[in-house]
Amino acid sequence: MKIGFIGLGHMGAPMALNLVKAGHDVQAFDMNGDALRRVADGGAMPARTAREASADAAFVITMLPAAAHVRAALTAADGVLAGLAAGATVIDSSTIDPASAQAFGELVRARGGAFVDAPVSGGTGGAAAGTLTFMVGGAAADFARVGPVLGAMGKNLVHCGAVGMGQVAKICNNLVLGISMAGVAESMALGAALGIDPKVLGGILSTSTGRCWSADTYNPYPGVIETAPASRGYTGGFGTDLMLKDLGLAGDAAKQARQPVYLGALAQQLYQALSSRGDGKLDFSAVIRLYQQPANEEPR
Amino acid sequence: MKIGFIGLGHMGAPMALNLVKAGHDVQAFDMNGDALRRVADGGAMPARTAREASADAAFVITMLPAAAHVRAALTAADGVLAGLAAGATVIDSSTIDPASAQAFGELVRARGGAFVDAPVSGGTGGAAAGTLTFMVGGAAADFARVGPVLGAMGKNLVHCGAVGMGQVAKICNNLVLGISMAGVAESMALGAALGIDPKVLGGILSTSTGRCWSADTYNPYPGVIETAPASRGYTGGFGTDLMLKDLGLAGDAAKQARQPVYLGALAQQLYQALSSRGDGKLDFSAVIRLYQQPANEEPR
Amino acid sequence: MKIGFIGLGHMGAPMALNLVKAGHDVQAFDMNGDALRRVADGGAMPARTAREASADAAFVITMLPAAAHVRAALTAADGVLAGLAAGATVIDSSTIDPASAQAFGELVRARGGAFVDAPVSGGTGGAAAGTLTFMVGGAAADFARVGPVLGAMGKNLVHCGAVGMGQVAKICNNLVLGISMAGVAESMALGAALGIDPKVLGGILSTSTGRCWSADTYNPYPGVIETAPASRGYTGGFGTDLMLKDLGLAGDAAKQARQPVYLGALAQQLYQALSSRGDGKLDFSAVIRLYQQPANEEPR
Amino acid sequence: MKIGFIGLGHMGAPMALNLVKAGHDVQAFDMNGDALRRVADGGAMPARTAREASADAAFVITMLPAAAHVRAALTAADGVLAGLAAGATVIDSSTIDPASAQAFGELVRARGGAFVDAPVSGGTGGAAAGTLTFMVGGAAADFARVGPVLGAMGKNLVHCGAVGMGQVAKICNNLVLGISMAGVAESMALGAALGIDPKVLGGILSTSTGRCWSADTYNPYPGVIETAPASRGYTGGFGTDLMLKDLGLAGDAAKQARQPVYLGALAQQLYQALSSRGDGKLDFSAVIRLYQQPANEEPR
Repeated sequence: MKIGFIGLGHMGAPMALNLVKAGHDVQAFDMNGDALRRVADGGAMPARTAREASADAAFVITMLPAAAHVRAALTAADGVLAGLAAGATVIDSSTIDPASAQAFGELVRARGGAFVDAPVSGGTGGAAAGTLTFMVGGAAADFARVGPVLGAMGKNLVHCGAVGMGQVAKICNNLVLGISMAGVAESMALGAALGIDPKVLGGILSTSTGRCWSADTYNPYPGVIETAPASRGYTGGFGTDLMLKDLGLAGDAAKQARQPVYLGALAQQLYQALSSRGDGKLDFSAVIRLYQQPANEEPR
Repeated sequence: MKIGFIGLGHMGAPMALNLVKAGHDVQAFDMNGDALRRVADGGAMPARTAREASADAAFVITMLPAAAHVRAALTAADGVLAGLAAGATVIDSSTIDPASAQAFGELVRARGGAFVDAPVSGGTGGAAAGTLTFMVGGAAADFARVGPVLGAMGKNLVHCGAVGMGQVAKICNNLVLGISMAGVAESMALGAALGIDPKVLGGILSTSTGRCWSADTYNPYPGVIETAPASRGYTGGFGTDLMLKDLGLAGDAAKQARQPVYLGALAQQLYQALSSRGDGKLDFSAVIRLYQQPANEEPR
Repeated sequence: MKIGFIGLGHMGAPMALNLVKAGHDVQAFDMNGDALRRVADGGAMPARTAREASADAAFVITMLPAAAHVRAALTAADGVLAGLAAGATVIDSSTIDPASAQAFGELVRARGGAFVDAPVSGGTGGAAAGTLTFMVGGAAADFARVGPVLGAMGKNLVHCGAVGMGQVAKICNNLVLGISMAGVAESMALGAALGIDPKVLGGILSTSTGRCWSADTYNPYPGVIETAPASRGYTGGFGTDLMLKDLGLAGDAAKQARQPVYLGALAQQLYQALSSRGDGKLDFSAVIRLYQQPANEEPR
Repeated sequence: MKIGFIGLGHMGAPMALNLVKAGHDVQAFDMNGDALRRVADGGAMPARTAREASADAAFVITMLPAAAHVRAALTAADGVLAGLAAGATVIDSSTIDPASAQAFGELVRARGGAFVDAPVSGGTGGAAAGTLTFMVGGAAADFARVGPVLGAMGKNLVHCGAVGMGQVAKICNNLVLGISMAGVAESMALGAALGIDPKVLGGILSTSTGRCWSADTYNPYPGVIETAPASRGYTGGFGTDLMLKDLGLAGDAAKQARQPVYLGALAQQLYQALSSRGDGKLDFSAVIRLYQQPANEEPR
């Protein structure tokens, strides 16, 4: 199968390489030459433009930082839509606002193509291992058609409803994630201050009603989960600034829907405080640092 | 084994009956005569006072609403300590502040007994099914000794550290629970307003990084989890006023430890708002009602 | 002096009429014919387009709901810039984000004009009485030049710095206002629930360290300040949806500046909750309703 | 007039000395010998116990850190009640919870005395200058009787209603104060980050609808108000830990009244974060430090 892939960053590159490994003919493009070269070294065919990457492809996948980049990749003179094959399907795996996804769906349909939004969860680890979850918005037939392609990159494919609903699912999931991580951080820091062994508390949170991914898989307290970013200085993982972006998308969607998001808005400010003190590149579980005072710090 | 049991409410009664079923000789007491009679009908021996219930018992279990009740049950003239057998072990399964638990431990030790704090999680369902989690604070030898007794009422026995650490574990768990439930409510209500099918969103939250007990087992959106209180009008389950109590305990412990609890404090206000509009007896997952506006409500 | 005036809503209309009363020759435009007619009846000359309103004018004032409207009014084919006189000064009194104000300043300067942003505070009452405060961003010479014009509509003209700083001042003022109003509402509702006479509490808040405009001039508790919207069913005044818009601008500016706004984000959610239950048109001091439970409401 | 004065701390000492200056015969007591000596040097008569200080006094004033201290001062064997003269009036100027004030009122009345609660606002500056505001709860006749005494220490005497209502007024005032100060800090820090001159912004906040004591008299940004603690390194003034105590009282009273205090609870966590990093002794306006990131701070 010939597949165009636009956007070869921390997530896009391993995803494209998994398509290559699955035997697909991947035409890759990124404005960053180094990123492009690395994926070409892995077996993809480098393209000079998004249009060239899309030529004759049955599927075109975009994996970009924000809605503005997707819009540019689709609509530029040398963009995807300029060279889209008849009957091709565009899969946008970027995390963007639902309204933009719906607008992009209209654009693609107007050019005779099909469109699904298919944002992911699972992080760079899941991208490398091919175990991502794809949250897909689009018609049932389109969902069926993209299955084998997404299946080469992920393990769970969830049909979330019409175009845009993949983004709704992603935003709503990360709203819960951002809140529960900060909540677990608050609880672990409190427990430690009250004298309980953090490993014991981590174990309890993993087996009781406080059970959540942020406690049992990605615990923010160093040493509780050996494989979590907290146990390696908050490197790797899902950056604080990315969480900040997703909570911003949730807040904007909530404004549009006229819904309050009390805890989401507060959690956003916590990650903002972490980012503004210079920790925006650390894994978002570093939010626990807001709750941990340096020992012996002198009153200022 | 002869076991005294003080406090036969929604939790205490099924716990005492599970001890009876396990073949123990249970001497039960409650100030509420009806509650006492129901447990006596189930095979326990009714006592007229806490002292009488404790007489000759190897273990005395207290399961009461607040620290003040435990103090009274222990120290009253006809209380537990007045008649405690030499070498008996007092197990307090109430949810109270860690400092009070530590103080009660001193009182019991001064009378020659052993003490563990052993608050539970699992709710009335877990109490009836004998599948509670016990979070136990106390010396290792005491933890070992209470194992067979607690094992008749629960499935997970977790040794959390010294006396008081069971309460720390409970408080920290319920802090996460109160936050994650309100977070899931916020997310489910937002998703529904944006057009996604709540069952689909519930499924995603149960299999992605937003995964948590509040999403996959106890989802606050009606109809998503058939066995959850949300699917039966928020009846049964864990009352809002009880969650409010536990978040209050967490806030007080945080004050003492000089730790901020941003999200916990905000979640507490949300449950407070729910309670003050008359919904304090509903299951705490009814917090989603704060996010759901009645359709067609007239501006006031 | 010939002055163009674009935007004749609740604020713009009385402002334009105060210019007429001061003897200026006002060329007015609004897309709403009724609004235009009312101002024409008051002595302004009606124009058919923003371009016509600006023709030969020494000053052009825009008073519009959002940045998108200002952009359209300036740049449309029949817009302000199409017919701007050489050396004319554009005064934008809309409340918009600082970055857009700076972009509009560039556009006007490129056409040979001068630009100041001059958002107001004081509400419809101040607009009618000619007692508005103008927060002006622009060069010192431009600030001096607009003085006599703004002086006909307001009492306080504050030079806030370069272009955009008027908007910064407005946004930062309304951030404090939105927070302090909700804080006063929280306090007045708590005091009343604890048994103090609201008028007494209002008096104390007006003379102690809690003193603020939201307490001493615009108290949200009915009957405390006879002239406040609270004493007439929250009609008139500054609408909840307008406060919501301004807190949204503050949140967006904070995101850009990488600053946390904890209380502003939470206050925004409170006004959002008020709006989403259908009270968005009420004065923003109606936020106190979130704290007042209907007496005798049945548990649901 | 013979007046007993119990509690000679930062507030109590200057208050007692103002009574001496007004010609009263002050019998002073404090458990801290140094504090007692300083006030004795100023002309008060030192007593060895609270009982001795109260002997033959027409008025007894208590100014202590918390309800527990007041209870001890009143009820100890050598306490106030043990030696209260017939018809004497006890004035408690401590800041405590309303329910305790009401309980103390009962105790005093049972001993044949009169009681008013009379917490103050105005800080150590107001105490020294004799310009405090007294918020008085008690019967009208008692309020009239204490007037001349309080008038020697303060400028505004406000009758807030029955016993306890002075505390309600104080708590509700400081709830607004704690919120508005953090709100002004948030706004000043945001404005500065967006490029406005803090003095200009301070001026706008002092003359617009954001006007409040925290902006126009006690602005948290250094250099905006020369006489404010912010302009002298946050020394002097009203300590963060005192604000934390008062917001804790407000939260407890709200729990009892079943009222949500969203912003108050969040503000409390902000001051808690400030205190837990070692700044609890600084003036509470130092809360702005939570919003100011050190320039060029390295990611940790």
